[in-house]
Formats: sequence, C-alpha cells, structure tokens
Amino acid sequence: MLDKRDLNNADDSQQRYQAILESAARVICARGYDGASMQEIAEACGMTKAGLYHHIETKEKLLVAIMNYGMDLFEDQVIAKVIDIADPVERLKACMAKNIKLVTSGSSKEVTIILHEHNTLTGHSRKEMDARKKKYVRFLESTISEAIRRGQIRRVDSTLAAFAFLGSVLWTYKWFRQDGALSEEQVAAGMVDLFFRGLMPGRQ
Amino acid sequence: MLDKRDLNNADDSQQRYQAILESAARVICARGYDGASMQEIAEACGMTKAGLYHHIETKEKLLVAIMNYGMDLFEDQVIAKVIDIADPVERLKACMAKNIKLVTSGSSKEVTIILHEHNTLTGHSRKEMDARKKKYVRFLESTISEAIRRGQIRRVDSTLAAFAFLGSVLWTYKWFRQDGALSEEQVAAGMVDLFFRGLMPGRQ
Repeated sequence: MLDKRDLNNADDSQQRYQAILESAARVICARGYDGASMQEIAEACGMTKAGLYHHIETKEKLLVAIMNYGMDLFEDQVIAKVIDIADPVERLKACMAKNIKLVTSGSSKEVTIILHEHNTLTGHSRKEMDARKKKYVRFLESTISEAIRRGQIRRVDSTLAAFAFLGSVLWTYKWFRQDGALSEEQVAAGMVDLFFRGLMPGRQ
Repeated sequence: MLDKRDLNNADDSQQRYQAILESAARVICARGYDGASMQEIAEACGMTKAGLYHHIETKEKLLVAIMNYGMDLFEDQVIAKVIDIADPVERLKACMAKNIKLVTSGSSKEVTIILHEHNTLTGHSRKEMDARKKKYVRFLESTISEAIRRGQIRRVDSTLAAFAFLGSVLWTYKWFRQDGALSEEQVAAGMVDLFFRGLMPGRQ
C-alpha cells in the first residue's frame, strides 16, 4: 500500500507531467508538429532534451499524450458535468456552453492540436483518437434524437444538427480573443441562443 | 498586341500553373507544410524539382500561391455569385449554400491549407491573407446588420452570428464525405434551414 509520501510523489509527478504537456502543446500549437523540434520543446519545459526524453519516449508519443490530455479535459469539464441532466435540450445547451467555455478559456491549444495534427497520427493512436471523437458525435446525435422523440425540437437530421453544433462550438478556437469585444459568457450564451432557436418547433 | 497563339500559350501556362497548385495542395494537405518536401511535391506534379522551381521560387511562395488560389476560387464561386442579390437574407442563404458546395465539392484541400497553415505565413503574406479573410467576415456582418435593420431577422450580435455561420459552413471540411449518408445538397439545404430558423423573428 502507498503511504502519504508516495501519494504526494505521485501527485507531484503527475503535475510535472501535465506541465510538460501544457508547455509542449504551446510550442506545437505555434510551430506545428513537424516544425517544432524536441530541443525547442525541452527548452519551453525548462529541461534538457535528455530530461524531456526521460518523461516521453518519442515525439509521436508526446503528440498522442497531448491529444489524450485535451480529450480528458473535455470529458471531465464538459461531458461529465452534463451527462446526468435529465432533459435532453437542457443537456445539449449545457454541453454547448461548457464546451465553448473550455475552448475560450485556455484549452484552445489542445483543441488546435487535436484538430490540425489528426493526419500526423498513425495506426493504433489514430484509431483511438478517432474513437474518442466519434463518441462525442454519437452523444450529440442521440441526445438530439431523444429531444425530437420527446417533441421538444423539430424533426431535423440529427447528424447534420450535431455537426452544426460542433461547427459553432469548435470554430471559436479560430476567432475568439480574450481581449475582444465579446466576453466568454456572451459567446456561450449567444451561440446557445442562435443554435437552439433554429431547432425549436414553430410555424416558420 | 498578343496574337491568338500567344493567348493560347498564356492559357496553357495558366492551366499548367493551376495544375501545379492543385497537386501541391494535395500533398501539403496530406502531409502538412513542414512535412511535405519540394521533392514530393515535384513528383506529385510529374516534374523534377528543378522543373518545379522554374514555376515557383520558394516553398513559402508556393504556399501563398495555393492560399490565394483558394481565396480566388471562393471569391469567384461564392461572393461574385451572390453579391448582387438585393434581399440580404436571400444573399446570406445563397452565400451559405454556395460556400458549403465549394467545400464539399473538392476545394476542401485549399480550405484545409488556408485554415491550418495560417501560422506558417509571415510578414506581408500573412497580412494579405488576414485581410482577405476579414473581408468575408465584414461582408457577413454587414449583410446580417442590413437584414436586422429591415426587420427580416431578430436583433442578434452580427459578429457572433457571422462566426456561427462560418462555423457551420467551414466545419464541413472536417466531416463531409462524398460517399457518406448525406449528399452535398442535403448538407447545404439542412445547414441553411438550421441557421436561418435560428435568426427568424418569433415568439420563442
């Protein structure tokens, strides 16, 4: 069994590992995966290259770790927080607001890497990342279908609506600026309003 | 003055240049800018590396030329076709449908490059590309504002609505497949329906 010191060590080591992923993500996001050298990444982490290789075996494994870290953040801060909301429309609205918040409040570098470096992955890692992304699309589709069955929204194609949802949400990584005219809250509330008004049943 | 043979030569040379940009775009899209070598690009064009350098001075100039080619296609096939539509809502709807069509029907590689390699550009080229993109955002914002002034759509933030529009449209490059369940027409019509229903004035 672990004693308290071991647990603290485990925490320290995990925090250190996350700090490496954060710094590496910053470099890869700015320079692209092929453009970023392990030397630059090590410097950004305040380490020697040998020190960095002590934590991460290869550059591709580093990329996979960053992507998985981004998906973990997303699952913790978005999916886990909304999955138990009983009303499917409220579940979707909360999901959109929280996902926008995740992108606007600093995780846009992981999002950028997940989106831009998809083709860089090969074999098993690529399949695994595809599966994690598809799980989100399926969650959106099935929640939209549930809302249609309950008569809360009109009969739209759930796949199309899921990708329109994702487009509004994920596109924010391209244009949102912390010092821009719109606050995070305004963007989240405005996107939820625009998107869900389009789904409401009505006479138009 | 040019005689007919000169004009034919000019056409041939322009067609050849466009064919180079198309092939190069395919390679850069698949491998990323840093990952794609001039050797690979030359091979994809059916040329020697020296032959390629005869047409294009540097790799960065090639990238700039591909991006400008993508923006030219967009301006010819989308903006020029809708700019004279008097009704602002009809102008926006046609613009969305035509832009989706551009992305789904084969220009997604130029779109991918314009979006992913933005940070690769430097100095003047970057400013120029930024200005071309911003012009599109301004066009959307001012058309949305015009529709609000005319009472055709409700009072939404025009910047937010412009980026929600762009998110729905440009995101299609990520998920649309020619052999998928939804046709190009279904995607275009479905996105227009979802987005514009969200803008309609009404009691909800």
